[in-house]
Amino acid sequence: MCQLLGMNCNTPTDIVFSFEGFSKRGGLTDHHTDGFGIGFFEGRGLRLFLDNRPSADSPVAELIRQYQIKSENVIAHIRKATQGQVLLENTHPFRRELWGRYWLFAHNGHLSGFAPPQGEYFTPVGNTDSERAFCYILEQLRQRFAEQPERDVLFAAVRDLVSEIRAHGLFNMMLSNGEMLFAHTSTLLFYIVRQAPFGKANLSDAEVSIDFTEVTTPKDRVAVIATLPLTDNETWTQLAQNELVLFQQGEIVCRDRPDLPVYLSKEEGLRIARSVGAAL
Amino acid sequence: MCQLLGMNCNTPTDIVFSFEGFSKRGGLTDHHTDGFGIGFFEGRGLRLFLDNRPSADSPVAELIRQYQIKSENVIAHIRKATQGQVLLENTHPFRRELWGRYWLFAHNGHLSGFAPPQGEYFTPVGNTDSERAFCYILEQLRQRFAEQPERDVLFAAVRDLVSEIRAHGLFNMMLSNGEMLFAHTSTLLFYIVRQAPFGKANLSDAEVSIDFTEVTTPKDRVAVIATLPLTDNETWTQLAQNELVLFQQGEIVCRDRPDLPVYLSKEEGLRIARSVGAAL
Repeated sequence: MCQLLGMNCNTPTDIVFSFEGFSKRGGLTDHHTDGFGIGFFEGRGLRLFLDNRPSADSPVAELIRQYQIKSENVIAHIRKATQGQVLLENTHPFRRELWGRYWLFAHNGHLSGFAPPQGEYFTPVGNTDSERAFCYILEQLRQRFAEQPERDVLFAAVRDLVSEIRAHGLFNMMLSNGEMLFAHTSTLLFYIVRQAPFGKANLSDAEVSIDFTEVTTPKDRVAVIATLPLTDNETWTQLAQNELVLFQQGEIVCRDRPDLPVYLSKEEGLRIARSVGAAL
Repeated sequence: MCQLLGMNCNTPTDIVFSFEGFSKRGGLTDHHTDGFGIGFFEGRGLRLFLDNRPSADSPVAELIRQYQIKSENVIAHIRKATQGQVLLENTHPFRRELWGRYWLFAHNGHLSGFAPPQGEYFTPVGNTDSERAFCYILEQLRQRFAEQPERDVLFAAVRDLVSEIRAHGLFNMMLSNGEMLFAHTSTLLFYIVRQAPFGKANLSDAEVSIDFTEVTTPKDRVAVIATLPLTDNETWTQLAQNELVLFQQGEIVCRDRPDLPVYLSKEEGLRIARSVGAAL
């Protein structure tokens, strides 16, 4: 199953700790994943690493560990149990420029019969339902707004577009412009906001722990969002099915949750994801 | 001075040999460059590595050597003698999507008073004259053509746009959509087309040589384009000032050369480049 990882902070932060756990959760314990990608914003700039090679010794994964890139916004996507070769142009996250900013998008799920008309501003390069959804969201935003609108207006527009797209199937996704990060759940997404007083955290699937007091300042605030919790001694909050949240400066600033929220168990969420095909 | 490197081939080819020489030429013998970037097309996909850190041990440069990415189209840019920190969003090459393909662009030069109006389709993310020129070219192409036109029509359109932009200053540039590669010279650009019978090549600035017969098939054709020749035992062809060429499948397929072509000596070309400022 694919997994998503996102980070949104009020100060540039190293994601290596979470990336370690994320990689393990994705099934890296015994063998490397069948492709992954990770994008780091640095200010307005964007550094995107894609790896579509099933290799036990990915030089890209190694680079990320060594480089210790500090970023305020990160989106990563890991792919497992794929059928055949993964083409580079179909590897998440996808990127485009809109309103003078880069946008990054990753999707975990499957959309049926989602075939929006040819866009005027954005055209998919590959042939995934995911890139189609990304281009559709940006296309509609650009059609409606010549410049980036106020945050609440933008959130409402994304909410409507996501609601339209999820009628076609599973749509767990993350979307960021380097300043804000949207996360939407169809099955499973969990988040944690780390801030003072910081403590220690232990990865669930690796014998690695970190004492955040040693690597943070009292003003730091870091939100980490993932398909499944990455640590076993912290409290992660689950997003409800069909919930959309917007993180900025390390906290949730906009939220759209169904009136009668449904929370899937991990087992149920994973079962649903598997049932719609290995392409997840 | 900045330097450009491009490759266009009829089969996916490893650029590590040329990249080694290019890096040395850029001033890497004693210290690492002040930033570089390299983009590799793999089919329709694009892998872009940017390094804006002045570091003697760039993990990105190391990754490129280790990874041995095979690509049909590559554009690289190396930056030297910069003033202050280089922001990631201002690091070449730049990328955008147009007509369902990624486009990659790098520029060596300096444009004065080049301030095109706000585009409808493309907006710069950083604040360089180079990214403005790139966005202007794509904007104008998109305004004129809803889909990618025939090759000759596209070449004529790029020729007119380049001619307009170079009125503002030095405009050595490379532009590729993963299928074709445009190269334009204001001061210095040289190219070589390697094809059967292949021989040996020695880098000019490093004790490295390669026997291409061992790494090629008889059908391979590889064009390499660079600010200065990279090898000392092969014949490189110089592009004239204000010449525009289009490479496809490892050969020049379209060419626009002034009726009275002028070829600068290397010394004169470097002198002119230096005279317009350290930002080159």
